[in-house]
Amino acid sequence: MATTMPRADETATNAALAALVKELGQENVLVSAEELREYRDPYDYKGSDEYTGSAVVTPRSVENVQAIVGIANEFRVPLWTFGTGRNFAYGGAAPRVRGSIQVSFREMNRVLEVDDELAYAVVEPGVRFFDLYEHLNAGGYRLWPSIPDLGWGSIVGNTLDSGRGYTPYGDHPTTQCGLEVVLANGELLRTGMGGMTTSKSWHLFRESYGPNHSGLFFQSNFGIVTKMGVWLMRAPEVYVSGWATWRDEGACAAVIDTLRELMFEGVIRNHPLVGYGVPTEGGRDASGGGWMVRFALYGRESLVEAQYEIVSDALSASTPGIELTRRLYRGHDERSAATLHDDKVQGGLPGLELIEMFKRLHGEDAGHLDLSSIGPLSGADVVESIRLRREISERHGVPFSAAVVLLPRSALLISPVIFDTNDEQQTRAAYDNYAKMVVELAHAGYPVYRTNIQHMDLVADQFDWGDHAQRRLNEKLKDLLDPNGILSPGKQGIWPQGMRPPR
Amino acid sequence: MATTMPRADETATNAALAALVKELGQENVLVSAEELREYRDPYDYKGSDEYTGSAVVTPRSVENVQAIVGIANEFRVPLWTFGTGRNFAYGGAAPRVRGSIQVSFREMNRVLEVDDELAYAVVEPGVRFFDLYEHLNAGGYRLWPSIPDLGWGSIVGNTLDSGRGYTPYGDHPTTQCGLEVVLANGELLRTGMGGMTTSKSWHLFRESYGPNHSGLFFQSNFGIVTKMGVWLMRAPEVYVSGWATWRDEGACAAVIDTLRELMFEGVIRNHPLVGYGVPTEGGRDASGGGWMVRFALYGRESLVEAQYEIVSDALSASTPGIELTRRLYRGHDERSAATLHDDKVQGGLPGLELIEMFKRLHGEDAGHLDLSSIGPLSGADVVESIRLRREISERHGVPFSAAVVLLPRSALLISPVIFDTNDEQQTRAAYDNYAKMVVELAHAGYPVYRTNIQHMDLVADQFDWGDHAQRRLNEKLKDLLDPNGILSPGKQGIWPQGMRPPR
Repeated sequence: MATTMPRADETATNAALAALVKELGQENVLVSAEELREYRDPYDYKGSDEYTGSAVVTPRSVENVQAIVGIANEFRVPLWTFGTGRNFAYGGAAPRVRGSIQVSFREMNRVLEVDDELAYAVVEPGVRFFDLYEHLNAGGYRLWPSIPDLGWGSIVGNTLDSGRGYTPYGDHPTTQCGLEVVLANGELLRTGMGGMTTSKSWHLFRESYGPNHSGLFFQSNFGIVTKMGVWLMRAPEVYVSGWATWRDEGACAAVIDTLRELMFEGVIRNHPLVGYGVPTEGGRDASGGGWMVRFALYGRESLVEAQYEIVSDALSASTPGIELTRRLYRGHDERSAATLHDDKVQGGLPGLELIEMFKRLHGEDAGHLDLSSIGPLSGADVVESIRLRREISERHGVPFSAAVVLLPRSALLISPVIFDTNDEQQTRAAYDNYAKMVVELAHAGYPVYRTNIQHMDLVADQFDWGDHAQRRLNEKLKDLLDPNGILSPGKQGIWPQGMRPPR
Repeated sequence: MATTMPRADETATNAALAALVKELGQENVLVSAEELREYRDPYDYKGSDEYTGSAVVTPRSVENVQAIVGIANEFRVPLWTFGTGRNFAYGGAAPRVRGSIQVSFREMNRVLEVDDELAYAVVEPGVRFFDLYEHLNAGGYRLWPSIPDLGWGSIVGNTLDSGRGYTPYGDHPTTQCGLEVVLANGELLRTGMGGMTTSKSWHLFRESYGPNHSGLFFQSNFGIVTKMGVWLMRAPEVYVSGWATWRDEGACAAVIDTLRELMFEGVIRNHPLVGYGVPTEGGRDASGGGWMVRFALYGRESLVEAQYEIVSDALSASTPGIELTRRLYRGHDERSAATLHDDKVQGGLPGLELIEMFKRLHGEDAGHLDLSSIGPLSGADVVESIRLRREISERHGVPFSAAVVLLPRSALLISPVIFDTNDEQQTRAAYDNYAKMVVELAHAGYPVYRTNIQHMDLVADQFDWGDHAQRRLNEKLKDLLDPNGILSPGKQGIWPQGMRPPR
């Protein structure tokens, strides 16, 4: 699966670590095996030490980050940056290159600004969804963050990985606005309107005068983001969390087409989620082979009631036998008391329910890889892609479940590959099966848009158009922006000169 | 104002033109002064020939574009690319570098694809808003394009210049999805999910696996976009065009704050426009010094009626004396018969009303520059920025009017500087005044986000943060991606090596 992995040079690394201790203090440079354990890939085989760094350094300021980058350039050693390292299904904090110096943002975790009137915040890369939520609550702001399934991750990390949430602000790459970036040469860049010192609109207007640089820093190793603006949702008068179940797979296409049209109309403004065989605590249990969908409505009570009736009528008309329920939360405080996972994520409340449920079902040492591909938001296509995914999964002996996130015009189909990380053979088989599935999905037209560290090269390989034109451009940009190849080498399959795998 | 302009080398240009005639045929290479007249800056002084190309070439295919780029590299001559060249207030088709070879996309004007189910189209760069509208109508699609004030412009050109329209799809940089780009080395790139040959989601999902390249090609000279996906709006059941007027400037802040909250709530989903002294044919005439705002609602009749009541109540409560009117269009066909400018642009109907009105008011040979800056979407700030703009305008002897486009968290304030293009002194004074106003606005915190060819360097100069970090990055990228500096040198102040102004 992975190509032969480059390794960091030990002598250079030791010299760099000495310089880092001098710069940051011993307390910000972890090196003991015990301390590093937490920063390995939690879902790799427990006995493997392939994806292990040689140290974890903890910057506490932008200047610290610049100093770290300077030292890495001086000693030509690879860094591997992460927000909180909680993105377990995609590799956690673990580096692609063994022996990399891991840069942890856990201590750069300040909410730098909240603008109540214009509904945005500015965060450092270590700010977790939990932190922002608590900060907003403590400050008495009537603003909701958008939240992904787990609240312990970094907002910046999730956003830069093109993550999604489930409120109307769930399209995280689009609801961020205004980045500050440390480039590999140590220089600082502010994107968009932040490029003018006096500007009042760095975090208010997404475009630039001239080219827009922000996309360069998504899923990338071209720079290190140290600040980000994030747009927030004004707390609505009421919030309805809706939930529907049905048994007949034949009805799935109609449900998805119906929801798509309701999204086009602006009746549903969040990202609904369709699930099959997904364990859940909200509403009904769909794990018995049935289907479920959740969606949410927000706003004035009179409008939300009218919208709910429209959704209910449309789903009932298109899908005989569908059963619809809902929970209505009046006001900011009533919503803040929500406890069910589905109601929490659609209401911008961070939680850990899904990982707790995963551990209950599969044990403390279970791991999973998420196979996450993008297809058209068309009922017929989603049904066909689920059929294909199930067929591939069963052929590879992988139990099948699926969650489909309905995005504005695409369907993000996520299915987990679950294994016991104490069992080397089972773990390796899972990674191999995942790899085969990536290729089969690509043949069928479904790109994986985000992946774990071990499959990054393989997924990049599937982006073959124009004789791999995207990779050619990425490698040129990498050589320009990071000539010593110090920033997260191998991330998303982008390697610096000298580390590129033979092709 | 402009720095001393570089000029294209005449001998090299003539050799390149001979090669272009051989490649494209004489009929696709215009060189006579008579033919070139149309491609000059229509709003420069009529007697000036500073911003004049040496030829206009007309590619008819992507391969033609690649051949043109190859010839430009071979002979080291600058190209200047435009969609239709109708962006008059920003320079039309005219090049920054005198003697450039202008590349006109007017003949690459095919709508390549319309997907009715998923509501998007794929267009070539010469497709005008008129063309797409007519194509959709002719095909019987119930899909609306988003339209800026004038329908004769190129959709790709407007979008890449970060233009806006007035339906819920009016944020053109965000509603595009999936670019094809000819790079300066002649290679082709497809962005995002288009990077996989088999992918079904090139025009459906905006992000990439790895860095997102699309922003690099906005307001830029790093590549030539040859295809673009554009998301369309499903025709709503009803459409209401709303209109309100008031006289008291003191009420302006309350109107803007009220509208912002209605936008945050999702009640208003388009970009409302607030106008002062703007000539108009819809509803009331605000040119007598009064204020107006227009907005629109779309969807099921029952919801739209409820939403209109909410808007009406909120505006009446916040703004004593405000007078509200509306026009309701039931169904796709009723809307297609709309004739008033405001109802057309908010209903996705292209037109030319504004330019016709401008000519009626100011004469056939009047020109204007649009001073377009970005500030916070806060009533108090917009009022203050209007006061400042009026004060600056009056100080420079420029009659004042303003349109404020309300974007999700920012206010785009546009005021025209109008002059007689037959009068050299008046024209030059207008350009000089504009330049002074750019600098004064920058000092006050309002960046200009888009400008005409003569002020591109000056506006770029204002983006000074980090000792001009954005420019430094743009120049590095320019040298990497276009080492011979053949693509639109000087666009947005980005010059290739050898042409950079002394600083």
